[in-house]
Amino acid sequence: MDATPTYKAVRSGALALILSGMALAASAQDNPEVKSLGENEVLDEIYRLALTESSVYPWLEDMCLDIGPRLSGSPQAAEAVDYSAQLMESLGLKVIKQPVMVPHWERGEKELAFFKASNGEKAEVNILALGGSIATEPEGFMAEVVEVEHWEELEAMGREAIEGKIVFFNEPMNPENIYTFHSYGHCVRHRWGGAVEAAKYGAKGAIVRSLNLRIDPHPHTGSMTYENAVDSIPAAAISTRDAEIISALLKSGERVELFWKQSCQSFPDAPSHNVVAEVKGSEFPDEIILIGGHLDSWDVGHGAHDDGAGVMQSLAVLELFQKLGYQPKRTIRVVFFMNEENGLRGALEYARLSEAQGLNHIACLESDRGGFTPRGFHVEGNEALVKKILSWEYLLDKYGIHQLEEGGSGADIRPLKTEDNVLIGFVPDSQRYFDHHHSPTDTFDAVNKRELELGMASMAALVYLIDQRGL
Amino acid sequence: MDATPTYKAVRSGALALILSGMALAASAQDNPEVKSLGENEVLDEIYRLALTESSVYPWLEDMCLDIGPRLSGSPQAAEAVDYSAQLMESLGLKVIKQPVMVPHWERGEKELAFFKASNGEKAEVNILALGGSIATEPEGFMAEVVEVEHWEELEAMGREAIEGKIVFFNEPMNPENIYTFHSYGHCVRHRWGGAVEAAKYGAKGAIVRSLNLRIDPHPHTGSMTYENAVDSIPAAAISTRDAEIISALLKSGERVELFWKQSCQSFPDAPSHNVVAEVKGSEFPDEIILIGGHLDSWDVGHGAHDDGAGVMQSLAVLELFQKLGYQPKRTIRVVFFMNEENGLRGALEYARLSEAQGLNHIACLESDRGGFTPRGFHVEGNEALVKKILSWEYLLDKYGIHQLEEGGSGADIRPLKTEDNVLIGFVPDSQRYFDHHHSPTDTFDAVNKRELELGMASMAALVYLIDQRGL
Repeated sequence: MDATPTYKAVRSGALALILSGMALAASAQDNPEVKSLGENEVLDEIYRLALTESSVYPWLEDMCLDIGPRLSGSPQAAEAVDYSAQLMESLGLKVIKQPVMVPHWERGEKELAFFKASNGEKAEVNILALGGSIATEPEGFMAEVVEVEHWEELEAMGREAIEGKIVFFNEPMNPENIYTFHSYGHCVRHRWGGAVEAAKYGAKGAIVRSLNLRIDPHPHTGSMTYENAVDSIPAAAISTRDAEIISALLKSGERVELFWKQSCQSFPDAPSHNVVAEVKGSEFPDEIILIGGHLDSWDVGHGAHDDGAGVMQSLAVLELFQKLGYQPKRTIRVVFFMNEENGLRGALEYARLSEAQGLNHIACLESDRGGFTPRGFHVEGNEALVKKILSWEYLLDKYGIHQLEEGGSGADIRPLKTEDNVLIGFVPDSQRYFDHHHSPTDTFDAVNKRELELGMASMAALVYLIDQRGL
Repeated sequence: MDATPTYKAVRSGALALILSGMALAASAQDNPEVKSLGENEVLDEIYRLALTESSVYPWLEDMCLDIGPRLSGSPQAAEAVDYSAQLMESLGLKVIKQPVMVPHWERGEKELAFFKASNGEKAEVNILALGGSIATEPEGFMAEVVEVEHWEELEAMGREAIEGKIVFFNEPMNPENIYTFHSYGHCVRHRWGGAVEAAKYGAKGAIVRSLNLRIDPHPHTGSMTYENAVDSIPAAAISTRDAEIISALLKSGERVELFWKQSCQSFPDAPSHNVVAEVKGSEFPDEIILIGGHLDSWDVGHGAHDDGAGVMQSLAVLELFQKLGYQPKRTIRVVFFMNEENGLRGALEYARLSEAQGLNHIACLESDRGGFTPRGFHVEGNEALVKKILSWEYLLDKYGIHQLEEGGSGADIRPLKTEDNVLIGFVPDSQRYFDHHHSPTDTFDAVNKRELELGMASMAALVYLIDQRGL
């Protein structure tokens, strides 16, 4: 940490007393004032600073409004790499840009789709090509729609009922799960593999109900795949509102045709970067605590919750430690991974380099579930260490962190799993996430400043505890 | 409960097994299937039904979009009384409309205000007259602005610095509290009593910074008071953005004048109603568990979070018990209180009648902190009973309810406090509440369906536990 920030004057009573008589301009290298604070007092101060002095919200605002969405391989993704490096440098950190080749897919012109039912009803519907999909014919095409809830139904229907038609995968997310990601996990296979399954029966295209728990007009894109042995057919997500309309027509016995035009295209892999910055540990520099998220986003909305929030929160933890004057004992690395959305190339390259360099990541923390009010963390990995971290829940209770639980961490950090480390996923409240995920509504104005700050503070608090106590 | 709803078929695995072989059309009077379920299974079912079959969201939508805001004494408030009674009757409930006289104040024409600074800057600012305020002169007036953070500063400034001017109370809400209501409690005195304090020194008007933690252009109104011995002067809230602009000009040494015109007016008290419905307890009909919120709202926005959410959640608890086929042992009363915002007349009249009738409210639960994702409950009252309820936290942990804590309940139920009962405030996440409170942004689209449903489910779960276990 090269910067020498001053220790900010403390406004509130209790801590002001504790700090009275202390020098207010101590070096961030190793601040004796912070060292003299108890763990609970530092945690209080982390939350206070997050709510009063953090740059996490304006940083996110700038990336959302000045750069916007940043799909891998796009000029905006390159701009976001530069912007991220500048932010890190502005904190006095040394920045490493790790080159990585990423998929390059472009949506092209806005998609066009409308249905025509046998009863004469006709209306435009909102779709988004899935990431990686091929285009339709340039002039589009019209075909009959056949609906299934699960792809297992295709076999019973047989090729003759499907050939030349559009298969409409209409599995709603299960509203019964309190934690919405559980419902996502169940449905996402139709988005990912629906085109392959439909093509096996000669379908001309695959339309997938958006992964959204609300009924609304916004389509939600996401990644999909093809298989070499199966024809590639176009795939798109349709808004839940339009899925309901078409489904109701089909269920009432109408024949429904869909006109569909999209012009998306894949290009050769493009060069891009992970962006990495670190603060060397004062006592155990070889023990790395990684904090990260992914810098790329889908190409609609602003990529605000997914995952602009996560990367800016990660860097803001280091800013907060500077403001606190806290010099970590262990090395803290912030990683902005590239290409989580459609390839995970950045994460794989980071893990490859990490292994080649013999790096020891004792704990990795990812924020990739939105900038919502914090609830807790999901921890996986070495059993004894997981238990240890879960035992700290009582320390974070007063800040509204009540869910330190075993569970999955994050896609970018999973390649760093060893037998000896822990991987941690930050868990904000999940109720609103899928209203915005991969859709034009994932915009900056859907992020609440305090929720974003409290999430960041919770990440900082856990990183501080790991750094202080070790694993 | 007069209705005989059918017990809905259960979709999910575990419970389906438990229920297999049970009649699906049992009477809600006393459903043996529900009786055979364990407490945890009923709680699961409460949350499942809330997320799949509740009417709470469409009920709120109808009130917000068809009726809109409903200030006491307004035609909309009367419409809301009728709508509420209809909803209760549609559930087969007997409805009691308790007459009560309420204050009647009208905003009149939209307020107009702009500032002019000595450096030539001039701009319109967004204000809302405070509820109960007098009008300005019909043509408005212009006066110099003097800023204070706290009213204690007025004495030092003295009458000559204040007379004929507009006192601008500019105390920001403290961002450091994690629970935002703590910050509200600290600032609200300037809105309530600022006009009185300013008038003591001859001020011509009082402008109060909106009680909002965000910097944005939306003014937030609320109630205020006058004192007989002190001149009545106009009072209004100004948006935080405009407060910051004017404050920056004043702090840089500019003289700032404000033009201000508002035409609000108080009228004689108007007739209105509390709306009450109940389900008689099967074993202890004289023990009443009250669930409620307030039906009135300020006259801007939709009164969606404050407190349309709370009343609709309260009634939806009874709907949910019907869908569950659950016949409570104790009497459950739903009360839509009138006039919480500017008088509390409904609550006081309810308490008066309750005492006259010798009613025994063993527990009262109010939802009046918004329809946000649930966090817990604040419980006050008889010490042993408070302790008992707090000990149930582990039962609700899996639903994200982690904050069963001692704390204040709600304004409408507080008059029902005795030495033997408990009063409970539902506590949703508080981060976004003051973005909407008393402002044009308190609209239906700011309410998330699942968050509203989960809040209602949490209320139903606690009422169920109180009813089952007794106090």
